[in-house]
Amino acid sequence: MAKKADPYTPGEQPRERKYIKLNTNENPYGPSPRAIAAIKEVADDSLRLYPDPTCEALTQTLAEYHGRKPEEVFVGNGSDEVLALAFMTFFNPGDPVAFPDITYSFYPVYANLFNIDYHLVPLEEDFSLSLDRFPEKNGGVIIPNPNAPTGKTVTLDFIETLLKRNPDKAVIIDEAYIDFGGTTAVNLVDTYPNLLVIYTLSKSRSLAGLRVGYAIGQAPLIEGLNRVKNSFNSYTLDRLAIAGAIEAIRDEAYFQETREKIITTREKTAAALRALQFTVHDSVANFIFISSPDMPAKQLFEGLRAEGVLVRYFNKPRIDNYLRVSIGTDDEMEAFVSAIRRIFTKEGLL
Amino acid sequence: MAKKADPYTPGEQPRERKYIKLNTNENPYGPSPRAIAAIKEVADDSLRLYPDPTCEALTQTLAEYHGRKPEEVFVGNGSDEVLALAFMTFFNPGDPVAFPDITYSFYPVYANLFNIDYHLVPLEEDFSLSLDRFPEKNGGVIIPNPNAPTGKTVTLDFIETLLKRNPDKAVIIDEAYIDFGGTTAVNLVDTYPNLLVIYTLSKSRSLAGLRVGYAIGQAPLIEGLNRVKNSFNSYTLDRLAIAGAIEAIRDEAYFQETREKIITTREKTAAALRALQFTVHDSVANFIFISSPDMPAKQLFEGLRAEGVLVRYFNKPRIDNYLRVSIGTDDEMEAFVSAIRRIFTKEGLL
Repeated sequence: MAKKADPYTPGEQPRERKYIKLNTNENPYGPSPRAIAAIKEVADDSLRLYPDPTCEALTQTLAEYHGRKPEEVFVGNGSDEVLALAFMTFFNPGDPVAFPDITYSFYPVYANLFNIDYHLVPLEEDFSLSLDRFPEKNGGVIIPNPNAPTGKTVTLDFIETLLKRNPDKAVIIDEAYIDFGGTTAVNLVDTYPNLLVIYTLSKSRSLAGLRVGYAIGQAPLIEGLNRVKNSFNSYTLDRLAIAGAIEAIRDEAYFQETREKIITTREKTAAALRALQFTVHDSVANFIFISSPDMPAKQLFEGLRAEGVLVRYFNKPRIDNYLRVSIGTDDEMEAFVSAIRRIFTKEGLL
Repeated sequence: MAKKADPYTPGEQPRERKYIKLNTNENPYGPSPRAIAAIKEVADDSLRLYPDPTCEALTQTLAEYHGRKPEEVFVGNGSDEVLALAFMTFFNPGDPVAFPDITYSFYPVYANLFNIDYHLVPLEEDFSLSLDRFPEKNGGVIIPNPNAPTGKTVTLDFIETLLKRNPDKAVIIDEAYIDFGGTTAVNLVDTYPNLLVIYTLSKSRSLAGLRVGYAIGQAPLIEGLNRVKNSFNSYTLDRLAIAGAIEAIRDEAYFQETREKIITTREKTAAALRALQFTVHDSVANFIFISSPDMPAKQLFEGLRAEGVLVRYFNKPRIDNYLRVSIGTDDEMEAFVSAIRRIFTKEGLL
């Protein structure tokens, strides 16, 4: 009776024991204490009332933060929902949308769900993205910047070229990880009516458990998203999420402090792994993409799991000898590197 | 660039002044204090982590409550999202789904969004639903029980007839308002593999602001819903919503106390309005559907608004001389009836 669909597989959420959890790109630091206080403040009898379906207060806060107008901001239940609604709103069957062959694995899932054809743009050998590989005409483009799971970034010139080549199609830049060292494309919104930039509060704002994402683009794109969203679910954000998200965005000092700690820890971890002969791609995300010449990724993945460290292994062509490792605290990353040393020692590799 | 869609219009959420708000079927009593305490307890650093994408603890709680197995329960971001995903999962273009012509106005919105044809089943003059009016074969059926905005109920025999007539198609019973006096169809789930019953925590559990709904059906239907949901958004419920929903379901005493108060107030209000010559349809919901022979509904709607009372007016054929009035506290409903008396007096009707 039910339609076929080929769902996305999220990273595992362990329950049976305490792991060092470096497998789902969560932030090792808690969210802003101001966000937690704001949530507690609205957890009262007012929960009997529907939330504001337009999320006006949050939209206003995000618009101010990015120097945009409120009608240029769309909010949703995590960036995954924003992405799903964007696929529904802007992409069409029979007009293939382009995205990298190695990228966020939810994109082909959305495309299949909505029967949207797609063209996979192959990454180069070094996992960089090349403009030459994109078809001249597309039914739309979506790329994460930085890309996942590689952590590699593209320039704003690169993005502008895609925008110019596809003037009548939506070009979506998924900036889930932008705050860990990338350059946002949001300032191109004034120039390009076809640009949509998508953000999440799950990573740099440490609110994966609250489900808030948003998109910025010119008003007609945002209006289109709202029309589809309001045909699907009027109230996608609950009262607690709206209140927490507003304070998380406002707490700039906490945001800067935690993201800088993560960047510092990332570079320290990359150096330690390179000293162990790992290939570590330059990352501007809160994760690194690594490969050892001495041990297959799958074996290392399993070894780390046995040592109490969860990382992400993708059993997919081209990347099945890599691990994606989220950046935790300094202590967690030192424990991770120590675990590798123990595994390597046991195998006589050190 | 964006697709056309004809969105649902939710009842207004006033900001400018304090109204007696009887327009969106919210519960006048707050949620269970245990639910609020549970939310506050999980509002901490753990928000940095993703929620459980399977919502196992909540699914388990709901299964126990209804005497079902966990694999027979699907949870979502409000029953609106559950309904949207059910339309995606079970209904198909070219195979018209049947629902009443006067019903929850989101159904045709979903159908249009997913290009699903539909057949409108006309209600009788007294707003009752008649089996004779349903086509013999349907691409699926969806009816709310009790119906909205009329508050009228159908029997389980009625539902069983629809289930038997459409053995290969999903028959969805939307029980958003069932706890205010209706008889749930959930016990038919064992007999009918094509039955899906949908519930919300927004009404009888007073958690409209938290966004939790769910569906119960045999495991293959639930599996189908999960496949589509996991192709759309892995994490539709945040950590706070999961924790609050579990405690709201567990607090049976509070639930019974508040729903009984609402039923008592509804009957009292209906009697007061009948004394003012209103037509008041028998309702088993937390709202009543009323019409005055003395004043057009639109005029009364505007008069009530000026008096600080919001009710719902639908500018639609057949029901444009009716108002849907949510049941508030005794005090609120007395204020509502007093406001009508003042309006009638001003117009020389009393």
